[in-house]
Amino acid sequence: MERMETSPARGMKDYLPIEAALRDWMLGVILETYTSRGFQRIETPALENLDRLIGSGGGENEKLIFKVLKRGVKLEIAGADENTLADLGLRFDLTVPLARYWAHNQPKLPPVFRAIQIGPVWRAERPQRGRYRQFMQCDIDIVGEPSVLAEMELITVSVEAAARLGVRNPVLRFNDRRFLDSVLDWAGVPSEAGPAVLIALDKLDKIGPQGVLAEVARLELGEKASGNLARFLEESSASEELPMGFFAEIGLDEAVVADMVAIASLSACATLGGTKLVFDPTVIRGMGYYTGPIYELGVAELGFSIGGGGRYDEMLGRFGRPAPACGFSLGFERISLYLHEQGAHGAVGAPQVHLRISSPADYPIALAMADRAVARGVRASIEGTSKKLRAVIRHLLEEREGAVGAPGAWIAVVELSGADLKIHDVTGDCPELSWLRD
Amino acid sequence: MERMETSPARGMKDYLPIEAALRDWMLGVILETYTSRGFQRIETPALENLDRLIGSGGGENEKLIFKVLKRGVKLEIAGADENTLADLGLRFDLTVPLARYWAHNQPKLPPVFRAIQIGPVWRAERPQRGRYRQFMQCDIDIVGEPSVLAEMELITVSVEAAARLGVRNPVLRFNDRRFLDSVLDWAGVPSEAGPAVLIALDKLDKIGPQGVLAEVARLELGEKASGNLARFLEESSASEELPMGFFAEIGLDEAVVADMVAIASLSACATLGGTKLVFDPTVIRGMGYYTGPIYELGVAELGFSIGGGGRYDEMLGRFGRPAPACGFSLGFERISLYLHEQGAHGAVGAPQVHLRISSPADYPIALAMADRAVARGVRASIEGTSKKLRAVIRHLLEEREGAVGAPGAWIAVVELSGADLKIHDVTGDCPELSWLRD
Repeated sequence: MERMETSPARGMKDYLPIEAALRDWMLGVILETYTSRGFQRIETPALENLDRLIGSGGGENEKLIFKVLKRGVKLEIAGADENTLADLGLRFDLTVPLARYWAHNQPKLPPVFRAIQIGPVWRAERPQRGRYRQFMQCDIDIVGEPSVLAEMELITVSVEAAARLGVRNPVLRFNDRRFLDSVLDWAGVPSEAGPAVLIALDKLDKIGPQGVLAEVARLELGEKASGNLARFLEESSASEELPMGFFAEIGLDEAVVADMVAIASLSACATLGGTKLVFDPTVIRGMGYYTGPIYELGVAELGFSIGGGGRYDEMLGRFGRPAPACGFSLGFERISLYLHEQGAHGAVGAPQVHLRISSPADYPIALAMADRAVARGVRASIEGTSKKLRAVIRHLLEEREGAVGAPGAWIAVVELSGADLKIHDVTGDCPELSWLRD
Repeated sequence: MERMETSPARGMKDYLPIEAALRDWMLGVILETYTSRGFQRIETPALENLDRLIGSGGGENEKLIFKVLKRGVKLEIAGADENTLADLGLRFDLTVPLARYWAHNQPKLPPVFRAIQIGPVWRAERPQRGRYRQFMQCDIDIVGEPSVLAEMELITVSVEAAARLGVRNPVLRFNDRRFLDSVLDWAGVPSEAGPAVLIALDKLDKIGPQGVLAEVARLELGEKASGNLARFLEESSASEELPMGFFAEIGLDEAVVADMVAIASLSACATLGGTKLVFDPTVIRGMGYYTGPIYELGVAELGFSIGGGGRYDEMLGRFGRPAPACGFSLGFERISLYLHEQGAHGAVGAPQVHLRISSPADYPIALAMADRAVARGVRASIEGTSKKLRAVIRHLLEEREGAVGAPGAWIAVVELSGADLKIHDVTGDCPELSWLRD
C-alpha cells in the first residue's frame, strides 16, 4: 500500500506518550504550586478577533499571526486583501487575551486578581530545531496591585514552581525600566532615541560592550551621551549588591530604589533557598510595554533564560479598564527540554501489570485483578492475545528504557486462563503478586 | 473612557476561575483514571493540513472547518477560492488526528496502543446556548486489538471515569453495526438504500416509530422491506436481555452474537456496580465509519448522552497503516454542565488565608507564614493594602457562594504589621491559627 505523507503540519509536533506524560506532570506541578498560593486558572479561546491582535503591542509577533478565513459568507475575493478575507487569528501570546479578559470579566474577579494561564499559542515562525509553531505558554499575572509586593509574590511563586520541577541553581536577574529611563536621561540621550539605545543594550550578551557602543555610535547621540553610556556599561556588572553610589549619581527616584531593595531582600526568604537574586542593569526584556521592575530566571549551566516578566501598568487600559499589572512567564518548552535532557520522565515509570486473556469469559476475573492492582497504585490493563507476547514485552522494555532516569518501576505480564495464572517478570524485579487473586 | 467591545470571539467562551477550576478537576480525574488503566496520553497540533481534514469521513463537520490563510507568500487573490487561499485547518475532532498520528508514529507505539486524547476542537457552527465553537473533546481509543476485549476495556474504563466524576445512575446502551447490516439484509433493503434507512432509524427518539416509518415509506423500498422494518421497530425496545430469538430469525452471525454476549456480561463486574448495560437496537451513532459494536453512555434523568463510541476498523488505513481500532468519547462539556448543575465546584472551595501587609519589609515573615499554611493544605497569598479590606472580603464570600455545594471551606484574612497579627474570620468557622507564627 502506498505510504502517505503523515508528518504533522509544517513546524508543528506530535507528542509521544513518554513526552506527553512529562508535560502532564509538569502542568500538574505548576498548577498545584500556583493554586496553593492563591492564583486561579482562567481560560480564553485560542481564537481572538483579528483587530484585537493587531496593534496590540505584540511587536514582531503580530507579523506571525495565523489568520482564519471568514466563514458563512461568500468570500468577495476580487479586490480583497488578507485583512478583509480573515476576521480571526490564533493568539500569539497570553497577554493580549488577558487584557481583553480582564476588561470583559473584571466585576466577577477579585479586587487583586492572581491569574494563571497555561495553554498553547501559535506563531508562524520559520521552523527551526526545537522551536515549534505551536507551543505552550505558562503565565501568572497579578492585576490590581500597584506596589512591589506583586513582583515579590510573582518571583517567589515562580521560583518555587521551578524548584519543584527540578530546576537546579536558578538565578533571578532583575532590573527596572524606570532605572533604565533614568540612565538614559542622565546620559543625555534624547527621549526619541531611547528605544534604539535599549535595543542596542539588549544585545550586550551577544555582541559585547564594544558591539553595543558601536551601535550607539551609529545613533549619533553626541560625545557626551556616548561617553556616559560607555561609563554605564562599565558599571553594569550583575551583582548581589545594589550599586547605591551609581543610583545616587544619576539621581534615581527613591521609590525605584526602594522597589529594588525589596526584590533584593527576597534572597533572605527560606522558600528561595539556593536561588540567587542579582541586580543586572543589562536585563532589558524586549517588549515595549514594560513600565517598572523586569526580571529573568536563568540557570547557571544553560545559555538561555527559563522565564521572566515585568510590570506593564499601561497595557490593560487598552480595552477600557486601566489597572496596574505585572506578570511572570515560565518557559514551559525550554524547561521541558531541560528536564528531558536531565532524564526526567513524568509518570511513565509507574509499575505496571498487563493481564493477557484469550476469551471474553475471563474478562470479569481479569478486571477484578486489575482493580486490585489499581488500588495498590499499580497501572493495570487487560489485553487479548492477538499480539505476540514477545513483541509486547519488547515494547514495554523499550519504553522503560526511553524513560531515562525513571525509578526502576517493575513490569509484569500475566497470562490468565480460567483459574491459571502465568506471571512473566519483565523487568526481573517484580514483587510477589499473589494479591492479584484476592 | 470609552468602553470597547470585549466579548470573546463570536460563539466562543471565557472561563471564570470557578469554571476553570471545575474543568481542571475533571481533567485530573479523567487522566488519573485512564492512566491507571494503562492508557497513555498523546498530543497532536491543533492545526492539520487542510487536505487531511477534507474527505476524512467527518461528514457535516468538514463544512465547519476554520480555515487558515497561507502565510509567507504574496497571496494570489485574483482567481483564488477558499481552498487555494488556505492550507491549514483547525481540527474538528480528535479521530482524524489520531489516524494521522498512528500512521506517523506507529513503530514507536505499543503493539496494542491505548491512547488518551483530551483537547479542544473547533467547529464553526451557528452559535447557540451552551454550545461553543471551541470545545473540549475527551477520547480514548484502542488501536491494534481486533477482539471485543477492546470494547470491554473501553466501556469499563469510561464508566469508571464517569462514576469518579460523580455521574449517577449511568446507563450504557449498546448495539452493533453488523447487526444493523444484518437487519437491513433480512428486511430486504437494497444495500444502496442502507445508509438512508439508518439515518431514518437514528431519528427514532425524536420522531417516534410512525415518523421513522413515514421516512422509510418515502424511500420506496417496496412492501416487504417496509413491513419487515416495521416488524423490527416493534422488536426494538431496549432491554437487558438480548433478543436471541430475533437474532436467530435474521440469521445473525454467531461472532456478532458472541460479542454482544461479552458486552452484556460486563454488568456482572463489580467496578460497574450500578451501571445498567442494555442492548438497544435503535442506537445508530451518526458517523459512517463504524464497523462493529457501538455504544452510548447516558444518565436516566438527562435527555442526552454523555459519551459514546464504537469500532471503526476501516478508518486508520486511510493514512497507509490499516489497524483494527475502537474508541470511547466522554462528552466533557456535557458532563461539565451536568456537574455544574449538580453544584460541583472543582477545587475552589479549599481553605484560604489572605495575608495583608503594608510594607515590603514584612514580606519575608508573611512568606514564612504562607509556607506554613501551604504545608497544611491551606491556600495562602500575600497582598498589599491597596484594596479595601471590605471589598476583598466581599469578593471572597461571593466566590465561595458561587461554588455551590462546596464543602464549607473556611477563609481568613490576616492583617500583619511587624509582630502584630489581626485575624478576620471571614466565614465564621475558621480554626485557631496560632500555627501561622511558628
